Amino acid sequence: MADSIKVFAPASVGNSCVGFDVLGFAVEKPGDELLLRKTEKPGVVIKSIAGDNGQLSTNPTKNTATIAIDAFLKDFGRETGLEVELFKNMPFGSGLGSSAASAVAGAFAANELFGQPYPIEKVLEFAMEGEFFASGAHHADNVAPCLYGGMTLIRSNSPFDVIKIPVPSDLWVVLLYPEVEIKTSEARSLLPYEIPLKTASKQWGNVAGFIAGFMSNDKALISRSMKDYVAEPYRSRLIPGFNECKKSAMDAGAMGFSISGSGPTMFAFCTSEESALEIGKAMSVYYIENKIGHQLFISQINQCGPKVL
Amino acid sequence: MADSIKVFAPASVGNSCVGFDVLGFAVEKPGDELLLRKTEKPGVVIKSIAGDNGQLSTNPTKNTATIAIDAFLKDFGRETGLEVELFKNMPFGSGLGSSAASAVAGAFAANELFGQPYPIEKVLEFAMEGEFFASGAHHADNVAPCLYGGMTLIRSNSPFDVIKIPVPSDLWVVLLYPEVEIKTSEARSLLPYEIPLKTASKQWGNVAGFIAGFMSNDKALISRSMKDYVAEPYRSRLIPGFNECKKSAMDAGAMGFSISGSGPTMFAFCTSEESALEIGKAMSVYYIENKIGHQLFISQINQCGPKVL
Repeated sequence: MADSIKVFAPASVGNSCVGFDVLGFAVEKPGDELLLRKTEKPGVVIKSIAGDNGQLSTNPTKNTATIAIDAFLKDFGRETGLEVELFKNMPFGSGLGSSAASAVAGAFAANELFGQPYPIEKVLEFAMEGEFFASGAHHADNVAPCLYGGMTLIRSNSPFDVIKIPVPSDLWVVLLYPEVEIKTSEARSLLPYEIPLKTASKQWGNVAGFIAGFMSNDKALISRSMKDYVAEPYRSRLIPGFNECKKSAMDAGAMGFSISGSGPTMFAFCTSEESALEIGKAMSVYYIENKIGHQLFISQINQCGPKVL
Repeated sequence: MADSIKVFAPASVGNSCVGFDVLGFAVEKPGDELLLRKTEKPGVVIKSIAGDNGQLSTNPTKNTATIAIDAFLKDFGRETGLEVELFKNMPFGSGLGSSAASAVAGAFAANELFGQPYPIEKVLEFAMEGEFFASGAHHADNVAPCLYGGMTLIRSNSPFDVIKIPVPSDLWVVLLYPEVEIKTSEARSLLPYEIPLKTASKQWGNVAGFIAGFMSNDKALISRSMKDYVAEPYRSRLIPGFNECKKSAMDAGAMGFSISGSGPTMFAFCTSEESALEIGKAMSVYYIENKIGHQLFISQINQCGPKVL
């Protein structure tokens, strides 16, 4: 068995427009990389973190990756020492599931390094311990898509019931991250405690249409179903240029457009790479004109979750 | 072209447990029959209604079937006279979409009698005019499944967006109608105007699981997803023996159990005819013991909607 392993874990888009707290999908890029190495000295340490501008703690009890690894070791047996090198290749506080990607990278790497002793459901639980530290929530809407890949339905968080939804093979995703920070807690506090039953039933009509569209490869149905009555009307206010960006994307031919998780990253679904490039360009215009820093990522939906590099 | 036609239109189960106002499915039985005959004298008349114990009006402006036929004729041209014989083969006020079945029977019969001048989307609109008279609502959660057959998603009522969801071929349905009347308006007024967002997101998680289960023939997933947080907790109180009936059905092996539309009819999903017969027997026990009149219907899901007899 190897003494070290390097893995990649993808960014993910929670909610996926209409599936507030129950849907999420992973992308091919960006994503975190993590190197896990066996050491002589027992315990888990963080040797280095790159790409975080010094913002993340190297204390292993305060990092989602090492908390997930520690959860793995607690179950598996602690005798081995492990050191971690973490390469943060995505912005945090961006709504792209950065903490989930690190947690999944840690739990997945540990499980691979020790010969896959656990099934994916158990790896999910280890990763969720890391995610819980970061977000305080037991929602798996980033951890599940990051770990399972594809479009995932988290039907229940207690106990976890994760269902992988088939994805049309020619679906492309544009992500635009405007470089402003939105705290998940703030984005959540904007939402009303209650919603009208009438609004809720429109939402689950769209959730049903969205799932049926994915499962039958009906892109027109996916497109018609991408109207979020629940989070987008509130959270979009926190995102500079949201309306302009959405209009540009839709005018340029996007299938649908919404916020990734609690934002500020926005995503658009597109039907080809060419169209994704075109739509990405259109989405950037507002931020270029208004001199707002932003990052653009274009990829397909990640179908397999994390991988060994 | 024939001078008369006789058609069957099925009963339907609105909501289908988790899909409040957006899902519904049709059954093989019970259902209404309608005979439509061309006459010399212009205008639509009701010649007879059987099976209604004299409760339905024979005034064609006050009957869902003839209102739907009239809507057809208004669009198609009024020159022909038509007379209707209606055979009500299901209880009304039962939550089985009795008014929708008559409306669909009327609109479908007219469209067939005149050589199918309209596509199904237009027949839906004619039938909805009848349904609107009966229920005052523009929800198609009975008319759509009755007309399209199978499990239908009514993603939007304005404009109508009806999606047919594939149904596992070995799914059976038990319907038990306890003979107490519940007005749709009363059942609706019990429901809260608003629901907690947390409850709503659990519901759409289940709606998503329910749809995914149907589309992938995953009965365990359908079963896990059949928990209605929205209507059943309120409406079940109006139904004598609901808790006992549900427990009996689940103990006897039902996949899931809930209320049909606004009740009082209840339905159970089962995985075979034998199991459906067993479950139907178990569901009846409370009503037999308590001497409450009831009717039991066991059939598969109707896959094709109304048919010419």
